Amino acid sequence: MPGTVYLVGSGPGDPELLTVKAKRLLEDADVVLHDKLPGPAILEAIPEAKREDVGKRAGGERTPQADINARMVELAREGNDVVRLKGGDPFVFGRGGEEMVYLAEHGVPFEVVPGITSAVAAPAAADIPVTHRDHASSVSFVTGHEDPTKEESAVDWDALAATGGTIVVLMGVGKLPDYTRALLDAGMDADTPVALVEKGTRPGQQVATGTLETIVDARDEVGIEPPAVTVIGGVAGIREDVQ
Amino acid sequence: MPGTVYLVGSGPGDPELLTVKAKRLLEDADVVLHDKLPGPAILEAIPEAKREDVGKRAGGERTPQADINARMVELAREGNDVVRLKGGDPFVFGRGGEEMVYLAEHGVPFEVVPGITSAVAAPAAADIPVTHRDHASSVSFVTGHEDPTKEESAVDWDALAATGGTIVVLMGVGKLPDYTRALLDAGMDADTPVALVEKGTRPGQQVATGTLETIVDARDEVGIEPPAVTVIGGVAGIREDVQ
Ligand SMILES: C[S@@+](CC[C@H](N)C(=O)[O-])C[C@H]1O[C@@H](n2cnc3c(N)ncnc32)[C@H](O)[C@@H]1O
Ligand SMILES: C[S@@+](CC[C@H](N)C(=O)[O-])C[C@H]1O[C@@H](n2cnc3c(N)ncnc32)[C@H](O)[C@@H]1O
Repeated sequence: MPGTVYLVGSGPGDPELLTVKAKRLLEDADVVLHDKLPGPAILEAIPEAKREDVGKRAGGERTPQADINARMVELAREGNDVVRLKGGDPFVFGRGGEEMVYLAEHGVPFEVVPGITSAVAAPAAADIPVTHRDHASSVSFVTGHEDPTKEESAVDWDALAATGGTIVVLMGVGKLPDYTRALLDAGMDADTPVALVEKGTRPGQQVATGTLETIVDARDEVGIEPPAVTVIGGVAGIREDVQ
Repeated sequence: MPGTVYLVGSGPGDPELLTVKAKRLLEDADVVLHDKLPGPAILEAIPEAKREDVGKRAGGERTPQADINARMVELAREGNDVVRLKGGDPFVFGRGGEEMVYLAEHGVPFEVVPGITSAVAAPAAADIPVTHRDHASSVSFVTGHEDPTKEESAVDWDALAATGGTIVVLMGVGKLPDYTRALLDAGMDADTPVALVEKGTRPGQQVATGTLETIVDARDEVGIEPPAVTVIGGVAGIREDVQ
């Protein structure tokens, strides 16, 4: 009898933002496969004997997805109930979709357990609502680690600018100069409010605020580092009204 | 000493998808202000003595937001710790932003506690990841209750179509014919997979699948009713690979 693999979201990092279900599954699991993204507070609460870090290999480079997939299947076939713990939500830029399809193809029972995505919770931790009747009737989450000047870039910054809604960029600390430029070139107002939220809901949370024109300098002054989200749009200015 | 108002997300409806923090705050609260969206399983677990339904007024029409705002402030000033419980996440089309600003303006201490948004969790409950490396490098949440043919419609369906990413429509059961038409007119492929997920994570969950061209018929055959989300894009086809 194979075990079950639970693809579980850990939320943004505050252990109290785990779901009741994630907490129960972490307690009951035989093995917890994880990388660093769930954050120290959540990882340290899991007994070391059942934790397995699949984030980096011995040499320091990232574990290939194929190895993580194979390990999930192997453990389940040995009869283990496995929690594959992902930062935030497993289906928001978390490769959870690929892992689910792999498990299904290999006949391993699985269940997906959503978590609070950092794309909503990190802004909220800085008093920024991603939607607001006066500012945004849509919100788009997008990955920022692609080079916006590359021909084959999958992200269409022109279209995102044209939605008129909030844009939340994940994995977007390094390429901030590139995509803010792309959004300005797409015709967005230079005064559009922008906020960077690092380590949202965690000790060491930091926020930098500015506009599409000034945010790169603000990032450097505050010293924002990954993990952080970038919130672009009128909603990023609301935090000033409540502080 | 005024009490604190906690703007708390209840998640999509499965009580195990409440956060540990939401659960604790619901236990400790003096009063819980709510509407119907959190769903019966979560609402029935709250002692009736401290529940106050602010969803509908005696006549059956929706309580004006101004009344809800005033009630939060009144209760807090009387010294109550108040949980304002919102379905999903308070900041995803939940008017949480407006409520937060009102509390701040009135000097009432508040805290925002994120919840799992149905925009991610309802698709996940139907084995649909909102992002996937092969299908979508962005995901947009948008409200579907506006008339897309209205001049002043705040939602730009052309721009959303142009992003190439996943589109998740909330409050979009009734106007499904209008915005699928708008997306086809914007040049999206008629074969684009679409799924409707009603009551995601709850008893009575129902799913209808089709394409931009066929989904209206599928909605009617299955009998999809609110609350439901519409997922538009290649990711909506993934559930077939895992079933
Ligand atoms: C590979 S993505 C995974 C996202 C995750 N699945 C989610 O739903 O939050 C990693 C990115 O998530 C964001 N992130 C995760 N946790 C965060 C936190 N606590 N504060 C700010 N950003 C965070 C950062 O943008 C980071 O680069
Ligand atoms: C006013 S909006 C509030 C959204 C909420 N703040 C959230 O984050 O999920 C109400 C809409 O949420 C969606 N919704 C809420 N719960 C749902 C569920 N369990 N399954 C499917 N859709 C749901 C429906 O689109 C519904 O019309």
